[in-house]
Amino acid sequence: MTNPVPLVEVWRGDLLESFHFGHAVVCDGDGQIVEAWGDPDAVVYPRSSAKMIQALPLVTSGAAEKYGLGPQQLALASASHSGADLHVTAVQNWVEKLGLGEADFCCGPQTPKDRAERERLIRADQKPSQFHNNCSGKHAGFLTLNQYLGGDADYTAVDHPVQQTVRATFDALTGETSQHVGLDGCSAPNFSCSMRGMARAMAWFATAHHREDAQSLAAVQIRDAMMAHPELVAGEGRACTRLMRAMDGKGAVKTGAEAYFIAILPEIEKGVALKITDGGTRAAESAIAAILVRLGVLHADHPDAQAFVQAPITNWRGLKCGEMRPAAALLS
Amino acid sequence: MTNPVPLVEVWRGDLLESFHFGHAVVCDGDGQIVEAWGDPDAVVYPRSSAKMIQALPLVTSGAAEKYGLGPQQLALASASHSGADLHVTAVQNWVEKLGLGEADFCCGPQTPKDRAERERLIRADQKPSQFHNNCSGKHAGFLTLNQYLGGDADYTAVDHPVQQTVRATFDALTGETSQHVGLDGCSAPNFSCSMRGMARAMAWFATAHHREDAQSLAAVQIRDAMMAHPELVAGEGRACTRLMRAMDGKGAVKTGAEAYFIAILPEIEKGVALKITDGGTRAAESAIAAILVRLGVLHADHPDAQAFVQAPITNWRGLKCGEMRPAAALLS
Repeated sequence: MTNPVPLVEVWRGDLLESFHFGHAVVCDGDGQIVEAWGDPDAVVYPRSSAKMIQALPLVTSGAAEKYGLGPQQLALASASHSGADLHVTAVQNWVEKLGLGEADFCCGPQTPKDRAERERLIRADQKPSQFHNNCSGKHAGFLTLNQYLGGDADYTAVDHPVQQTVRATFDALTGETSQHVGLDGCSAPNFSCSMRGMARAMAWFATAHHREDAQSLAAVQIRDAMMAHPELVAGEGRACTRLMRAMDGKGAVKTGAEAYFIAILPEIEKGVALKITDGGTRAAESAIAAILVRLGVLHADHPDAQAFVQAPITNWRGLKCGEMRPAAALLS
Repeated sequence: MTNPVPLVEVWRGDLLESFHFGHAVVCDGDGQIVEAWGDPDAVVYPRSSAKMIQALPLVTSGAAEKYGLGPQQLALASASHSGADLHVTAVQNWVEKLGLGEADFCCGPQTPKDRAERERLIRADQKPSQFHNNCSGKHAGFLTLNQYLGGDADYTAVDHPVQQTVRATFDALTGETSQHVGLDGCSAPNFSCSMRGMARAMAWFATAHHREDAQSLAAVQIRDAMMAHPELVAGEGRACTRLMRAMDGKGAVKTGAEAYFIAILPEIEKGVALKITDGGTRAAESAIAAILVRLGVLHADHPDAQAFVQAPITNWRGLKCGEMRPAAALLS
């Protein structure tokens, strides 16, 4: 096993105050490693960075077509959204058409990241609902697939047909047999794979437009839906939304809990998987942005590249105290 | 230089999902290292873990006595409080007696961690004030000392008499000459030192009751004020408050930004300094609790010890997904 390597530095004044280790892999369309940092064989959960894989059976099954889902629903199925009114309303409308409601969800209620909605709930003395859960779009996808398959209500159980088909899809795309099943924040199972396996799966998404099989056609739909609706995949101000807008069609990116991040880069036909080993999201956002710049799909001088690659650290008076910077390994 | 070592593991199901490296040092009353993990010579900023040092000149100068400060003010001067009504009102009352108000503070406004106060502000459509800043007690201490010294209004400038006396105190207690000055979140300067230097300073606080010099008498006042008012040093639900209550008079602990943590342990006459090198506060809370258990000043079966040492990770439905655990180095 190779150790993780320093990927992001946190400077305050002229002193390195903190630093983040991680693993990262870039794969090409053949699933070959083009570049790697740390251990390509390190096995972790990709968490929400796997949502576009979890959404694939929704399309390949025929469920998406039968229930008339469009790019907005596919983007939401792949989203860790902010629980803004935009997201909540879209998910609500989606499941209402299926005759379903909040009580059918298994993701649990979550205080929304979106400030306006969070403060609206407080002013209205309302509790957050399951629609506010950042994974509610993924769960709407699970519920849609479940209605199509006619499974029982416990759609997050690991042996439920919905999760069994997700698992088979996940293993097929990573080229591995998942060895660990984690219970995710939203109560869905999350399957483990190596960094290499996830980068290969993302490269498969990136090159899907060259293939004609049903799964690849579905992958193009989902990936393009993410790129077409960056505001649905995360939310205003969030890294995924800002970086996808800044890349302007060159790729899709997706965060995952515990500092996972992926990139699907159709223009250069590559996939990226990144894990900051301490789970620090700030570093995952910085490192993925640095890798996107390195790969030529994000302009180094774009304000949103600068905001993440060399993120200024400011204090309560707005004074600059320091900055995050990519470690030498990402620059050399 | 010795590398940092794994101190905290984050498990999800049967897979190690994330882990945190760090440095930690335990010193005795002679300033000798009793036990260390990682690099005792690693130099960082102790951030808010140095607040009891920053409060010392307030007492040794005679300012605290002249303006009638008691244990509550000394605990607040050493606090990173939650900005609850309790804290805000106490700091407000303190500076009003000096003829000062919010406009005299240089810490900047901060959204309070305290949920009730945060939601009250939103409902009342009010912005947080500088009193809500977690450092407002420290700044009230600076303002008090400044009034005593007759310095100009810019009391956070590194060459201001208030900060010069803080720096001299800091260097004297760490036994080092600080090489770096960081701008802290509250705009005060923060001075660097080695892990060993900070552990030595904390052991000096822990053994101050054996000495008769003015600085040691002041240290006893401050340290005992922290232990007497754990609710003022942080706030309900916070690690410092819960761990100090759980230790029941055996010691004072204090968090700092970027995952610093210290412990002052008069009963066993030791001081502890800890830095999680990635800045992950969750791991600093877990590691300091594990060290307190190891040193025999915190019962392993106390609910607040368990809550931090083996912190359960639950999801939005309240289901247990995994837990944080001390790494082998803290257990062996």
